[in-house]
Amino acid sequence: MSGIQTHFADDDLADPVSVRRAIRSGAFTGQTAGMAPGYTQGNLAILPADLAMDFLRYCQRNPKPCPLVGVSDTGNPMLPTLGRDIDIRTDIPSYNIYRNGELTDTVSDIKELWQDDFVAFIIGCSFSFEQAMVNDGINLRHLQDNLTVSMYVTTLETTPAGPFRGGTVVSMRPMTARNAIRAVEITSRFPHTHGSPVHLGDPTEIGITNLTRPDWGDAQLIEENEIPVFWACGVTPQNAIRLAKPEICITHTPGSMLITDLPSQLDSRLDD
Amino acid sequence: MSGIQTHFADDDLADPVSVRRAIRSGAFTGQTAGMAPGYTQGNLAILPADLAMDFLRYCQRNPKPCPLVGVSDTGNPMLPTLGRDIDIRTDIPSYNIYRNGELTDTVSDIKELWQDDFVAFIIGCSFSFEQAMVNDGINLRHLQDNLTVSMYVTTLETTPAGPFRGGTVVSMRPMTARNAIRAVEITSRFPHTHGSPVHLGDPTEIGITNLTRPDWGDAQLIEENEIPVFWACGVTPQNAIRLAKPEICITHTPGSMLITDLPSQLDSRLDD
Repeated sequence: MSGIQTHFADDDLADPVSVRRAIRSGAFTGQTAGMAPGYTQGNLAILPADLAMDFLRYCQRNPKPCPLVGVSDTGNPMLPTLGRDIDIRTDIPSYNIYRNGELTDTVSDIKELWQDDFVAFIIGCSFSFEQAMVNDGINLRHLQDNLTVSMYVTTLETTPAGPFRGGTVVSMRPMTARNAIRAVEITSRFPHTHGSPVHLGDPTEIGITNLTRPDWGDAQLIEENEIPVFWACGVTPQNAIRLAKPEICITHTPGSMLITDLPSQLDSRLDD
Repeated sequence: MSGIQTHFADDDLADPVSVRRAIRSGAFTGQTAGMAPGYTQGNLAILPADLAMDFLRYCQRNPKPCPLVGVSDTGNPMLPTLGRDIDIRTDIPSYNIYRNGELTDTVSDIKELWQDDFVAFIIGCSFSFEQAMVNDGINLRHLQDNLTVSMYVTTLETTPAGPFRGGTVVSMRPMTARNAIRAVEITSRFPHTHGSPVHLGDPTEIGITNLTRPDWGDAQLIEENEIPVFWACGVTPQNAIRLAKPEICITHTPGSMLITDLPSQLDSRLDD
């Protein structure tokens, strides 16, 4: 490529290493949807080591909402298991800083904030399985209408670990019964990005009283011949961290994910 | 049931709670194959907390040989996520004690050895997927011949974490090409018990020079029309622990597993 540009040339968007280089330079601080297509993107949570062990247990006990795709060594910002030369202090477009559970700042790198006891966790996100559904001919309302998917806290309690607990947060996609069946088949092959749905049909069964008022994201139209289908969502661990009120926690800014070198196709191989 | 017996009545073998009660009482110290059929059994590794975080990372980075099904809280011997009233100090028939990587003792409980900083890890074993293959009509040579499956260290290096590293250990099952294809289909649905094979055919491709001399278990006959099929094996983390030489580590004695309350069928649901 011909150097860092504010507006990407088409081929710069295709390659995860080039995209991360642009992000690292500060040239790009926006959302990553559609960038480096075919590569796995992930949610970020950084916690001090004294909470990291309990957070690892929380992810192990709740694999559907918290599918771990990578964990850094303590104090080491590099993530060699996820790609070449990934420095988690600079390679995400935008970071949210939480202190005692409150959002206090949004920054484009965390070089000044990095601590020797930090552990970085990368958790699978739904981009891979959404692409697989679209490729299979399933229309996704929020993508068509250019909205953020609707998300809700449910009464499906997660299994606690140390200070981490709370209801499973779900994302909802409206679809016909035929597409819902096909969507179960497709997403069950993506265990590292939340896997098969946790519920479909009557939202009150999982404690959602009003579909038109999501806790996060935008409300979506549900057609007469459609039912809502619910998947466990990566906001679940963020919510659990918020409730645990750690002295410091750093996440990606919603939509600005880590782009890894792992082909998203790998994710459908179940356990590679 | 009518109380603890040295020889089990048939129905005592069926229920994981009854079986664990007998094991806890000291009435049973043998192998668990065939006990509480339909329930997941697991391998045990207990490590001090200062190594537990790296061992969790090792399992996360190597999910095929090290499929974690449960992790205890630090210093807490109970495993509520795996079943009712499971006390890991007493509920396994036989324990191996390793000091600095060397086997120093075999005991029937570890009440005296338990430390406030211990973390217990339960790792999936191949019993569930073997049963699924047998149910599908695939004959397994080592079961027919009443042998222990052949296991080999390979040149497939695991991804290290802290002091944990080493080659993937595989188990080998000889089968016809037709059964090998079917076995891939079946075992890919069991990600928590090693998943699909890591190799089939030419053993030298993964560094095995002599199939008739396994590193663990018994040699098996391979018929003219059969090929060897290799799965990642739960001996891999045990081997990594041995190489790391922790001051103390406790495992189950081979074949004497933890019997959980989790239906083994759950394991084929991919991510529940």
